[in-house]
Amino acid sequence: MSERGLLIVFSGPSGVGKGTVRKAIFENENHQFEYSVSMTTRKQRPGEVDGVDYFFRTKEEFETMIKNGEMLEYAEYVGNYYGTPLKYVNETLDLGKDVFLEIEVQGALQVKEKAPDGVYIFLTPPDLIELRERITNRGTDSEKVINQRMKKAREEIEMMQVYDYAVVNDEVDLAVAHIMKIIEAEHFRVERVIGKYRRMLEKL
Amino acid sequence: MSERGLLIVFSGPSGVGKGTVRKAIFENENHQFEYSVSMTTRKQRPGEVDGVDYFFRTKEEFETMIKNGEMLEYAEYVGNYYGTPLKYVNETLDLGKDVFLEIEVQGALQVKEKAPDGVYIFLTPPDLIELRERITNRGTDSEKVINQRMKKAREEIEMMQVYDYAVVNDEVDLAVAHIMKIIEAEHFRVERVIGKYRRMLEKL
Repeated sequence: MSERGLLIVFSGPSGVGKGTVRKAIFENENHQFEYSVSMTTRKQRPGEVDGVDYFFRTKEEFETMIKNGEMLEYAEYVGNYYGTPLKYVNETLDLGKDVFLEIEVQGALQVKEKAPDGVYIFLTPPDLIELRERITNRGTDSEKVINQRMKKAREEIEMMQVYDYAVVNDEVDLAVAHIMKIIEAEHFRVERVIGKYRRMLEKL
Repeated sequence: MSERGLLIVFSGPSGVGKGTVRKAIFENENHQFEYSVSMTTRKQRPGEVDGVDYFFRTKEEFETMIKNGEMLEYAEYVGNYYGTPLKYVNETLDLGKDVFLEIEVQGALQVKEKAPDGVYIFLTPPDLIELRERITNRGTDSEKVINQRMKKAREEIEMMQVYDYAVVNDEVDLAVAHIMKIIEAEHFRVERVIGKYRRMLEKL
């Protein structure tokens, strides 16, 4: 029996650049994980390929899958469903391959409940780090703008808590390198390897 | 205030090659952590430098330090004390630098009780992985030898449980690369960075 793969859940606040970082990760030759294609009910756009960009389904098909418990996570956004089919994820993990999900924060929370042993990586906006400088230096911002920014920063920090790792998206290449290291290092976690050793002993 | 450094505790069964791997890690130009020199009551050997190879102390001095709670961990071995002075470790961590300890399993257990937030890395003998092949193929081994080997393997696997990571020492260079990645990745753990963000917000 091969060891079950790692479920890698990559998320972060909207607008942080998750898609760009994810694409760069999969362009990197060293990546050794499978990308889980999302399912959506939104219209297929010219150039998009079913099964590559998204699995395009009707609203009825998607709702049937939800009802049958076939979605690992899903959310509704501007009248359309977006989600992750459970089957592909499970089958790929069972083959011993790592699966990479790039999903919204709400979806990540759903996955965390079902699969707490996944690796949860939060992409942090560089703003959060530059926050202090920006607020101090930009004397032109109104108090209202500053307060909104502070509130947003606070929410993002609190979101971070359910994740295992936080990586700043200041430079895409750097963020990619950090994420690759995190995933590699996770393979050495005792809870992931000790079962292999125990089973090895049992079989003797 | 700079962020407190990581305490890296590197251990494993005796004879696994901890010293060799640790030396290779510190010869690697990319390492960014400080080595905590151990203290001992054993005689200084020709060529050994006090404060580099060990801090050489008398038995009385060492016992006074134990009594005063100045040792992070210690053990007696063949009539001599070996241990880690707490002061250097704390001062270095407070400067925001990572500290690397290479210690015996018993010492690692003591450190774990005092500093559960450290990074605990267990070096695994390649034997453990080759165990199956070795036991199956070497028909020449007596049952007694096989049983002893099994018992040892079992003990080593159980020891592993208190650690965060297990790295196999099959090739020194590979083990070093894996350990370096683990340490880098640990800097991105949410529990290590979230405090920085929170303090940043509080200061605004």
